[in-house]
Amino acid sequence: MKRAYNFNAGPSALPLSVLERAQRELLDFQGTGMSVMELSHRSKEYDAVHNNAKQLLKELMNIPDTYDVLFLQGGASLQFSMVPMNLLGNEQIGNYVLTGSWSEKALKEAKKVGKTHVAASTKEANYTRIPATEDIQLSEQAAYLHITSNNTIFGTQWHEFPELPVDLVADMSSDILSREVNVEQFALIYAGAQKNLGPSGVTVVILRNDLLERIPDNLPTMLDYRTYTTSNSLYNTPPTFAIYMLSLVLEWVKEQGGVKAIEQRNKEKAAVIYEAIDESNGFYSPHAEKDSRSLMNVTFTLPNEEVTKKFLSAAKERGFVGLAGHRSVGGCRASIYNAVPYEACEALAQFMDEFRKQNV
Amino acid sequence: MKRAYNFNAGPSALPLSVLERAQRELLDFQGTGMSVMELSHRSKEYDAVHNNAKQLLKELMNIPDTYDVLFLQGGASLQFSMVPMNLLGNEQIGNYVLTGSWSEKALKEAKKVGKTHVAASTKEANYTRIPATEDIQLSEQAAYLHITSNNTIFGTQWHEFPELPVDLVADMSSDILSREVNVEQFALIYAGAQKNLGPSGVTVVILRNDLLERIPDNLPTMLDYRTYTTSNSLYNTPPTFAIYMLSLVLEWVKEQGGVKAIEQRNKEKAAVIYEAIDESNGFYSPHAEKDSRSLMNVTFTLPNEEVTKKFLSAAKERGFVGLAGHRSVGGCRASIYNAVPYEACEALAQFMDEFRKQNV
Repeated sequence: MKRAYNFNAGPSALPLSVLERAQRELLDFQGTGMSVMELSHRSKEYDAVHNNAKQLLKELMNIPDTYDVLFLQGGASLQFSMVPMNLLGNEQIGNYVLTGSWSEKALKEAKKVGKTHVAASTKEANYTRIPATEDIQLSEQAAYLHITSNNTIFGTQWHEFPELPVDLVADMSSDILSREVNVEQFALIYAGAQKNLGPSGVTVVILRNDLLERIPDNLPTMLDYRTYTTSNSLYNTPPTFAIYMLSLVLEWVKEQGGVKAIEQRNKEKAAVIYEAIDESNGFYSPHAEKDSRSLMNVTFTLPNEEVTKKFLSAAKERGFVGLAGHRSVGGCRASIYNAVPYEACEALAQFMDEFRKQNV
Repeated sequence: MKRAYNFNAGPSALPLSVLERAQRELLDFQGTGMSVMELSHRSKEYDAVHNNAKQLLKELMNIPDTYDVLFLQGGASLQFSMVPMNLLGNEQIGNYVLTGSWSEKALKEAKKVGKTHVAASTKEANYTRIPATEDIQLSEQAAYLHITSNNTIFGTQWHEFPELPVDLVADMSSDILSREVNVEQFALIYAGAQKNLGPSGVTVVILRNDLLERIPDNLPTMLDYRTYTTSNSLYNTPPTFAIYMLSLVLEWVKEQGGVKAIEQRNKEKAAVIYEAIDESNGFYSPHAEKDSRSLMNVTFTLPNEEVTKKFLSAAKERGFVGLAGHRSVGGCRASIYNAVPYEACEALAQFMDEFRKQNV
């Protein structure tokens, strides 16, 4: 079997050793005579999987005891609604920084729930950069400040988080666990799993416990964070297989040396591709400004659409998957999440060099 | 490897051949060099899986073109809220038949959204039976009548659906695809997958297209059925692996001869266990009245708690899993969904006979 060079933006590459272990255990989980998918979510075997995933995430991200870790469904898109439903009081204003399509969607959903304010936006600059902290203008009565820590579509990433007198909420779907962060800088972090954490179908929420006091009564049960905190995310049947895969991915991160080691490798992976761009004399043109470049999604364009098509077609033949840019911006994008090996990035950079020399 | 006799109430047994196929394909889906979990949800390979699942469900359940099939997340519990949010107009009343804990939960969530009415309830009879159609009293301005087609906890099941001048909405989580139903009797059917359809993590909704016109504007995007109908359930990343498993389970149902053949087998499976109860001279006492017995969840009690414990412990030693009754009713429960083989039911019946003779 030949492994693809998988640069998908999500769902995306998973560590090979994780897939191999899942394959080995698929028919008989720990001698139970059942697949992990066939276990009751109330069984002691599943409980151990569930709590292991939670514990490993706490350990790997250094999450203090003043925070809780929840497992939900519905992706980040459902969090766009749950955050304001739970945290945006009647007399308050949800503050949003717009750095791309996902921030815009988060704002759109918040507007259905309550009052909002755009605290900063780089839309005028076609989302090529992250705003500076001094450009963020909070409103009065700010319930929270919402940011998207990494912008998959535009390939930009916050490298320092704003320290402002407001509860910071971050959609970290596309860079959670890719670098060290100080969780205490945030009131709430949420992330769909399908980039750095596992397969699609589970969403992680990390929240500071005091936020629970702000939640209004009478929310739909499944949209109230307290339903998850009081039941250890077992109020109803959770996506057990997705959480099992999450636990395996977290064990893999630990084996790699933890988040610090992963971050170092991610920097090396991104560097080799950005180098191919920067040394191309403009043949490859990066979308993001240098200071705002993402270590997760490298976005670039080629001289024209014809060359872009040729590039994508030649890349496909060489076994590179998922390099077409998002339909809303075009060009190319290499998503290089935690499970994408350095060798794949190196192979891509070499291919980019070769292709450039042949098509310049 | 010894397969367990898996009587879990959900997540529950999956067909062995389905698990074996998933295992074979886990590292390399159709020569892509990627796991199905690593495929982009926008790829042609995943698209085929997604549409195959949808098409097979339409075929197996004879779903007319005037209906659509949606894949969501959040389980039936989220549908408890989505149904009234989408279908319960301001001047209307959501009608509910209470036949167990899940109907009660559905009603509880509807009360948060709008006006409700209990059209019938067998709570006074400790949910031992399904009400007769003539006992159902609809309110004026009924938006819909909500029923739970099978009650996992109490072991009762509707054997005929009420034909009344109202849109019928059914939670079919625990008996969908276990027997032939006329979809046209329903306005909307929903079901969490983890009993008859696949692993947990995906929820199927089947709705009549004209219902879409009733949906109010400004619902959260992820809670509006139109988000799924207009995007083929691909507005955001769906739970791709769960949908893949669903597609494999549906192929298996087709191989078994379709729903008609499955239904026949389910009747035989249930009959052998009910026989062990009925011929036990009251040693095993069924919870459900005879006319309301479930073909999916066989619930019964033993003479006293001590004997019950002994039974569960002896059953466990013999490799029977998941026979403890739900914590809210006690006693025993054998959940015998589609993927539980006849042999497991026969083995259980034999064990019940033996145990009775030794402990009478």
